[in-house]
Amino acid sequence: MPDTNGSTAYDVSLVLQSFRLLIADLCQQFGMGHPGSAIGMAAIGVALWKYSMRYAPHQPDWFNRDRFLLSNGHACLFQYANLYLSGYKQMTWEQLLSYHSERPDSLCPGHPEIEHEGIELTTGPLGQGIANAVGLAMATKHLAATFNRPGYEVVNNQTWCMVGDACLQEGVGCEAFSYAGHLKLNNLTVIYDNNQISCDGSVDLTNTEDVNKKMEACGWEVVDVEDGVNDVAAIVNALEKGRDPKREKPLFINIRTIIGVGSAVAGQAVAHGVPLGKDNVAEMKKAYGWDTSKTFHIPEKVKEFYGDLPSRGDQHVEKWNDLLASYTKAHPDLASTFKDRIAGKLPFNWSSMIPSTFPSDPTPSRKSNNLAISKILAECPTFMIGTADLTPSVNLTWPNYEIFNPPDLQPISGKKGSYAGRYIHFGIREHVMAAIANGLAAFNPGTIIPITSSFFMFYLYAAPAVRMGALQKLKVIHVATHDSIGAGEDGPTHQPVELAALYRAMPNMQYIRPGDSEEVAGAWKTAIEYTSGPSMISVSRHVLPQLSGLTKRSEVEKGAYVLKEEKDADVTLITVGAELSFGVKVAGQLAAADPPVKARLVSFPSHALFKQQSLSYQRSVLRRNEGIPAVVIEPYVSLGWERYADAGVNMKSYGHSLPGKYIYDYFGFNVEKMGKGIKKFVGDFKNGKIERGDFVDL
Amino acid sequence: MPDTNGSTAYDVSLVLQSFRLLIADLCQQFGMGHPGSAIGMAAIGVALWKYSMRYAPHQPDWFNRDRFLLSNGHACLFQYANLYLSGYKQMTWEQLLSYHSERPDSLCPGHPEIEHEGIELTTGPLGQGIANAVGLAMATKHLAATFNRPGYEVVNNQTWCMVGDACLQEGVGCEAFSYAGHLKLNNLTVIYDNNQISCDGSVDLTNTEDVNKKMEACGWEVVDVEDGVNDVAAIVNALEKGRDPKREKPLFINIRTIIGVGSAVAGQAVAHGVPLGKDNVAEMKKAYGWDTSKTFHIPEKVKEFYGDLPSRGDQHVEKWNDLLASYTKAHPDLASTFKDRIAGKLPFNWSSMIPSTFPSDPTPSRKSNNLAISKILAECPTFMIGTADLTPSVNLTWPNYEIFNPPDLQPISGKKGSYAGRYIHFGIREHVMAAIANGLAAFNPGTIIPITSSFFMFYLYAAPAVRMGALQKLKVIHVATHDSIGAGEDGPTHQPVELAALYRAMPNMQYIRPGDSEEVAGAWKTAIEYTSGPSMISVSRHVLPQLSGLTKRSEVEKGAYVLKEEKDADVTLITVGAELSFGVKVAGQLAAADPPVKARLVSFPSHALFKQQSLSYQRSVLRRNEGIPAVVIEPYVSLGWERYADAGVNMKSYGHSLPGKYIYDYFGFNVEKMGKGIKKFVGDFKNGKIERGDFVDL
Repeated sequence: MPDTNGSTAYDVSLVLQSFRLLIADLCQQFGMGHPGSAIGMAAIGVALWKYSMRYAPHQPDWFNRDRFLLSNGHACLFQYANLYLSGYKQMTWEQLLSYHSERPDSLCPGHPEIEHEGIELTTGPLGQGIANAVGLAMATKHLAATFNRPGYEVVNNQTWCMVGDACLQEGVGCEAFSYAGHLKLNNLTVIYDNNQISCDGSVDLTNTEDVNKKMEACGWEVVDVEDGVNDVAAIVNALEKGRDPKREKPLFINIRTIIGVGSAVAGQAVAHGVPLGKDNVAEMKKAYGWDTSKTFHIPEKVKEFYGDLPSRGDQHVEKWNDLLASYTKAHPDLASTFKDRIAGKLPFNWSSMIPSTFPSDPTPSRKSNNLAISKILAECPTFMIGTADLTPSVNLTWPNYEIFNPPDLQPISGKKGSYAGRYIHFGIREHVMAAIANGLAAFNPGTIIPITSSFFMFYLYAAPAVRMGALQKLKVIHVATHDSIGAGEDGPTHQPVELAALYRAMPNMQYIRPGDSEEVAGAWKTAIEYTSGPSMISVSRHVLPQLSGLTKRSEVEKGAYVLKEEKDADVTLITVGAELSFGVKVAGQLAAADPPVKARLVSFPSHALFKQQSLSYQRSVLRRNEGIPAVVIEPYVSLGWERYADAGVNMKSYGHSLPGKYIYDYFGFNVEKMGKGIKKFVGDFKNGKIERGDFVDL
Repeated sequence: MPDTNGSTAYDVSLVLQSFRLLIADLCQQFGMGHPGSAIGMAAIGVALWKYSMRYAPHQPDWFNRDRFLLSNGHACLFQYANLYLSGYKQMTWEQLLSYHSERPDSLCPGHPEIEHEGIELTTGPLGQGIANAVGLAMATKHLAATFNRPGYEVVNNQTWCMVGDACLQEGVGCEAFSYAGHLKLNNLTVIYDNNQISCDGSVDLTNTEDVNKKMEACGWEVVDVEDGVNDVAAIVNALEKGRDPKREKPLFINIRTIIGVGSAVAGQAVAHGVPLGKDNVAEMKKAYGWDTSKTFHIPEKVKEFYGDLPSRGDQHVEKWNDLLASYTKAHPDLASTFKDRIAGKLPFNWSSMIPSTFPSDPTPSRKSNNLAISKILAECPTFMIGTADLTPSVNLTWPNYEIFNPPDLQPISGKKGSYAGRYIHFGIREHVMAAIANGLAAFNPGTIIPITSSFFMFYLYAAPAVRMGALQKLKVIHVATHDSIGAGEDGPTHQPVELAALYRAMPNMQYIRPGDSEEVAGAWKTAIEYTSGPSMISVSRHVLPQLSGLTKRSEVEKGAYVLKEEKDADVTLITVGAELSFGVKVAGQLAAADPPVKARLVSFPSHALFKQQSLSYQRSVLRRNEGIPAVVIEPYVSLGWERYADAGVNMKSYGHSLPGKYIYDYFGFNVEKMGKGIKKFVGDFKNGKIERGDFVDL
């Protein structure tokens, strides 16, 4: 237990007062902000930053630092003020004062953002932070199991996650609690700021569950702290349980606090998202015996109290560096691999592990995934591959894969788990899968590249977390299978028709629909090389013809490319993913028409990638500027294709439950019918019946 | 307790065998399907359809019927076979055999669909069904509290929901359990098909929580049934607890079953989604002592066993009709209202309750909502209005609104609850809010029109349920506030830039962005009159100018309309929602340029509505076919606008944390800058520098 007694040498109540008034003044400044929770959590902040966390303010990226996440991100001032007080260099006084100012370069945005020192991941959308924290704790477990050796615990950091009442209610939080308990993550501590207030009033208006009992049922150890407002020592005691290596479960600390404590609106919902008000703040200062005319005052004693933290942090790092040095001597090969992983290096030859050719027989592109990358998955330990209970469907295992699970877990159905395992069974929890992947990716960028997998349609469940990954430019690869009506009999609940629009619109996201094994290889290469966000590889459930000689993996990274040129073309057919071969067949049909219609073919796996190409490349692929109209064939709704095409054979409704071999015909994706429609369109276009600005739904 | 003893007169084991073999044969037929769960649940089916549920196979829409939902929708054969056996007329033998056939008119799709007799809501995406069931049970509670009188329980049906292991893991399921426990829905029974198998193997691979303890912590009563495979009487006993009016909590029945029981793959994951195999089925028949050469055989005794159900159902209806008749005598006015509600009638004068004019001072459109419809909300009991903990932000209350909550609940912060209340505090649970709304809407179409509300960004959390509502054409109105970067300092986690693309792409969804109070009025009228799906009214957090004299509520239903015509226009400015006034200002800027650029203005609140208009109307609004280019101004990504515009001033990235008054400038939505860009674009367009097919990002 750390030297909390030492704190009696200081006036801790002065520290708490100072913190609360600082928060109150910061919200007062521009008449905006969330004061209440941060004020109520003052003592928790002292316990964490002064006593319990191991981190280094002057070396914020130290690999083995404890990770802290503020899942209740709106209470961001709690974190900003603590970063300032504990000596993070970026968080200058001037920066702290920029909260809600007009400064676009403020390090104090309305929710914590990953780009800034001391912030592990961006939080704000409630519940995400808990799930991210599970990912961070899993990363520690995995790397520890992989790299630690007796006497050399080179990875042993803790993950601390603050949550509010809201995070506990969100489904993604519930999934995270259930899964973390199952995983027995004894390096994870969730600190519950139990103030029983949310925007609408007291929490008992909407939630009366027995939280502690629920957490215990989910496999967590639970500790209560009755006075979270002032009892720093009790909080530190509870937090120390979090660090106890003998603990076998994740720890949930239920801390009673009072929102906006010390102010006239203490314990009220109004303290949540509105400044306390000038008079209230003055009253607070008066009650504390402070000078009411002073704002933003931090007494010297308080500064002193925090003064040792940077040097203490440097000592942590120094000690770890020493350990790493002796580890390097004792286990030179392992240490070398470890350092490569820390540096985010992939084995240099990874791309050569993708086969140069693929079988020419028809293959579902979900199986092409396995053909293309199973060797990489098997041999490249950077990848952790997960699925939301669809292992037999997504085909992302490899021979003798090990499962990430607690070592004492032997499921009824099979293999024993190990934290060194790289295959993650997330259960039927798509949302937390994607959010955990964000945590794994953010632990130390490049050290772990998480892959998630599910049916494409269920990436709608995961979407809020996928978006957070894109916003944070986290390198996660999502594998979405069963990505079209061709999935068949499962019906419209399982057939995406509109979801691609979301992922095509999502900034930083590489959404790719490859059409055969060759394009799948290109999609993986593009995804693995991409460093500015997640990728999604969207593949078919059903068997697809291989367009050998036409498709080119090297072109996938351009987003779209000419599959078959035709100098005096009448039309360009844009053809995509699971339905790539439709274009080829329709072109044949058009060529055989009387008179023939000359169609050129464009394969178009990714809007995001194509949009990045030069205008001249885009024009050379589409040639619309030469007066050649483009028609897209894709059984999704047309939205988004209007940028690239003049007409489309697209879905206009949800799908239908019909086996794959019947469903395309049912919706008019019949070669003959499409050919006729396109022929008529080309005629109308030439005759001027189609006017500028009419996108034609064929 | 019903006459289960009577069942000994029949050979229940023969019934169970017959059911299991029917399921096995149905999957064998086309070599596809999910046999295992349905086979394991045979005894549960007998308990429900033969003994415990009150329903009328020949009057499937009987208002006071028990509602049954199959949340584990992939086990649909369980329901189809029971509908057939209990005598639903639509579910003929021929129809039952059409499961996974090429028949597009099959009533046996891969997951149950709302359009068909005996199916209350479409299920399949896991966890949705539980949430829908909560909605159904809430509807009963609300209507009972509103219309029942001593001696006249005209609404007292039960809701039964089957769930599998997966539904319990999904976040939306967890939210539903927590909220239903809080609400003390003693008319809801969840029946857990506890077979401990999911696609990836045994459930303990991913979930080892103490389910019963968790449910108890969430406020549920828990009953165990050890032998769910054969012990029909034990299941019936447990189900009767569900009907016990003295119970104060929702009931969770944990029934141990064996997936694919009786077959060689019993208890194995492979029984889940793959037919058992010809030989396995033959072995099953042999073990049961059945003729292995017969398929689809239902013994006469089994038919006899189910034979009384239609007439028993008719008796239920008759009894209820009698009750309704005497209720009508005793409480004529109430009965008249009740019948109007059953018929889905809104008070005839609802649209006159929308004010004909609005204050001209700047107003946030979230406040316009309240100006437009608070009278309707107050006076029209059909509406139930909910929020995911954002009451102070979404402005959808009215004077003296009553809260929907258990009558014995008196939250610390305020008003006592009542099931007659129409304002629903969903807690911070956006996903279940939307899924519950689907249940409320589906209870009896038109009897309740649910309204949900949250920040637009959090409709990404709710999206899977919103989609299910759209797929089922359920009348739900979603109110999405804070719908632009103008929301300001909360930052990019809270600023939608790509989400509209999803809702604009979603079939059956009316996504509407009104620009001022006048358009808000039009949006509500359109939403309330729409009967083919949900609407989403997307409004601003921040203050908007009122474009009195320009905007027209009556035009909103057309999706887009001319705000200001200009005969010899150089450009059409498309301007939308929270940024509607930008177009007006830019047009002024362009008119003042030297030489002036003549801009016409189009307000474009809804893609979905505009797409339904005639081509000639569309052309008259956009006039692109006259050679006038259109430029859209909207701080979302451009995706989707390319159908209607030649260029756009749009977002190209996520947002930023900056107060609303600075953020538009930061991203270039500055009148002067936009004017310059558009002027240059118009010049380039005239000079032919812009070529056909180039959408220009300004």
